[in-house]
Amino acid sequence: MPDTPTEAPADIVVTGCTALVHGAEGGIGFAEDTAVVVRDGVIDAVTSARAVADLPAAERIDARGQVAMPGLINCHTHAPMVVFRGMAEDLPIEEWFNDRIWPVETNLTDRDVELGALLACAEMISGGVTAFADHYFAMDRVAAATVRSGLRAHLGWAYFSSQGPEGRERSLDFALRWRDGADGRITTALAPHAPYTVDDADLTATAALAREHGLPVHLHAAENRAQTDNSLARHGRTPVGVLEHCGLLDADVLLAHGTGITEDDLPVLERATGRVAVATAPRGYLKFAWDTTPLRSLASIGVPVGLATDGAASNNSLDVWESMALTSLVQKSATGDPRWLTARQALDHATTQSARAVGLGDRVGALAPGRRADLILVDVTGPHVQPVHDLAAALVHSARSADVRTTIVDGRVLMRDRQLLTLDVPEILAELRTRLPHLLDRDHGRRVQDYDG
Amino acid sequence: MPDTPTEAPADIVVTGCTALVHGAEGGIGFAEDTAVVVRDGVIDAVTSARAVADLPAAERIDARGQVAMPGLINCHTHAPMVVFRGMAEDLPIEEWFNDRIWPVETNLTDRDVELGALLACAEMISGGVTAFADHYFAMDRVAAATVRSGLRAHLGWAYFSSQGPEGRERSLDFALRWRDGADGRITTALAPHAPYTVDDADLTATAALAREHGLPVHLHAAENRAQTDNSLARHGRTPVGVLEHCGLLDADVLLAHGTGITEDDLPVLERATGRVAVATAPRGYLKFAWDTTPLRSLASIGVPVGLATDGAASNNSLDVWESMALTSLVQKSATGDPRWLTARQALDHATTQSARAVGLGDRVGALAPGRRADLILVDVTGPHVQPVHDLAAALVHSARSADVRTTIVDGRVLMRDRQLLTLDVPEILAELRTRLPHLLDRDHGRRVQDYDG
Repeated sequence: MPDTPTEAPADIVVTGCTALVHGAEGGIGFAEDTAVVVRDGVIDAVTSARAVADLPAAERIDARGQVAMPGLINCHTHAPMVVFRGMAEDLPIEEWFNDRIWPVETNLTDRDVELGALLACAEMISGGVTAFADHYFAMDRVAAATVRSGLRAHLGWAYFSSQGPEGRERSLDFALRWRDGADGRITTALAPHAPYTVDDADLTATAALAREHGLPVHLHAAENRAQTDNSLARHGRTPVGVLEHCGLLDADVLLAHGTGITEDDLPVLERATGRVAVATAPRGYLKFAWDTTPLRSLASIGVPVGLATDGAASNNSLDVWESMALTSLVQKSATGDPRWLTARQALDHATTQSARAVGLGDRVGALAPGRRADLILVDVTGPHVQPVHDLAAALVHSARSADVRTTIVDGRVLMRDRQLLTLDVPEILAELRTRLPHLLDRDHGRRVQDYDG
Repeated sequence: MPDTPTEAPADIVVTGCTALVHGAEGGIGFAEDTAVVVRDGVIDAVTSARAVADLPAAERIDARGQVAMPGLINCHTHAPMVVFRGMAEDLPIEEWFNDRIWPVETNLTDRDVELGALLACAEMISGGVTAFADHYFAMDRVAAATVRSGLRAHLGWAYFSSQGPEGRERSLDFALRWRDGADGRITTALAPHAPYTVDDADLTATAALAREHGLPVHLHAAENRAQTDNSLARHGRTPVGVLEHCGLLDADVLLAHGTGITEDDLPVLERATGRVAVATAPRGYLKFAWDTTPLRSLASIGVPVGLATDGAASNNSLDVWESMALTSLVQKSATGDPRWLTARQALDHATTQSARAVGLGDRVGALAPGRRADLILVDVTGPHVQPVHDLAAALVHSARSADVRTTIVDGRVLMRDRQLLTLDVPEILAELRTRLPHLLDRDHGRRVQDYDG
């Protein structure tokens, strides 16, 4: 039964679209010729065209030929790293970190981080991303870019044990200052870098801070199989075992990558008392020649897996739409089962599971009354999508991020018909280009950290 | 040293672009602030802006912020199958063929094939494809769509031994009638379906016809490892061994897929007296959970590998740009080597190797004087591509098919600033939609063939 919209004037009424909706059991369906009513940043109704025919609205969007769906969520990225896009190609992870990325990261000023984050926000809005989980440095500047762009973000200031206790304290200070910032669009996390760069004492202290302040934790864990093997050799525990040992699985924790999660880790994750989720960024795993995240195993123990891109220095873009398609394709290949990870399952990862992964499971991730109005309109009339026999397959396997026409966050239109409304890309790029020679300098011989995962 | 353009008026002058050019050894480079002069369907010069400042031209294209490069070549597809896009998802190959695709293919009328081919041409032009190798039925209609669209094509009428000698004769008749058709834009091939559907006698007869008429052969071979294993069990030969045994490796032959090519096949391919090439369509291999084409082994024996999409019923799109990116990613993953198949190697597959694969190695595949003017202009100013530290990586890993702004074939502009000039997509779709219920009918219980690969 369609919802009945409130009679007061709406902010936005989207008409004529096919809406991706979730059933009572969470299954994905499509409702044709639907109207979406947005009021005060919230979805007020997902209803019929007839129900909104006479409804006054500040803006009406004719979305015939388009699919309305929850905005994509980038569950693990380092937005400012777009400034390093393409400067460290075709390398194993050790060289990528030690010879290229960690040297140039010592060059970053706060302004570089902010310009990178602004460019990244422009890219994400244009690709239908409405929220991103970021894990980086100088995060006040990423928060500022979030405010300016209009996106939703889950932000954590990264730290290594090599920085001493100041790293951890800065991460906490940031998480407390920005919690519920940007009119509630910003949520925060503590952000230790990874078990191979943050020692057990620091991880244990982080778990205590998470409990004390009610903060979630976002960190890299079991990024690849070699890290798991090295951890076992050095500590007698897998990275997941280290997290449990340090109490982090009693906190709400978002693990990035997890391609090195083993079968033995599954009962450990299953007995966690906190909310555990994983973010998968499959493009980079192909590029580094790693295994991929074991989604089927994680599904078997009820751990949600959100979609992600990681940073553009490894992934080359922040295209979560591509991550959705690749997740389906790579899972089939990795399991040897063409029936596993269907298009509908990929859409479940892109919506429900991604929202849960970043702790927003009750606020976004579905077009349903009461959810924040984070939605996108996707053109399915292109010759690369038509004809449509199966809309889920059309979205996952035929449509592309460039087919997103309109991006709305918290009821505000950030891109309309592919025109960005909050950010000026040429202006951002003009300033960024003046800074590139300085940014790429590696003659100084410094690094932010050594890779020894 | 830049070329000196002829002084007579040009048809098209592209200015201000960065041009992808091939060095004397075939290596890929980029020439900034370049002009491309097109006259009589041929590239007349790749030169400097200064050299063309006063050159009269029927059309000048300001391509600042864009890369001019050879158009993409789809080296193996079944264009009309776009009508079945998304109707057979998440299935192993046996069910995909026997329960879905081969039943519905019995419904196809000539007009269905033509509408599908027209829609496919629209998709390919909009994705920067300038030539395609097609392997299907009712190929007069695909040829007609090629004529109308303005694309270049390498066409073969498919046949099974189950059709009797008529199948082979029809394939020959088509290949002779359309050879050098469409003002030379159409080349042709004999097109037996595959060693598992065409028996040795027919393959041997095909080889004789190829020699007699100077025609190349385009067929599926060693599509997956199971086919190779079954062929060994049944015939004591791999599919490649069968081709050699039947004399097909003395002809110019294009093998589709080859994911089941073994190490033992390599010397067989190496001693072939014909021109042997392989087409790789990596997306479908992930989707069917197959291995991928062994590009590194094939490179070691000098066999060119062109990029392809296969049909949209398995690949879901005809996006060769995506095939280029996936080729690089999947090769890294399959070999376990992040250094293998760099972006420049992927561009070499997309240009030189693809042109060689379809027998057009001296006519297209490079922006060089005397080559046919098949080129595309690609916008690299988008927020998902910038900043550009490595243009090869930017093209392969950050840009998308939707960034192709302009597509030119044989000196004729088929898409300008994303507007298709030769085909009317809404008109094609309007007619196609009336035919879909008939097209999807499977109640009749017929199939065009049984899969038993």
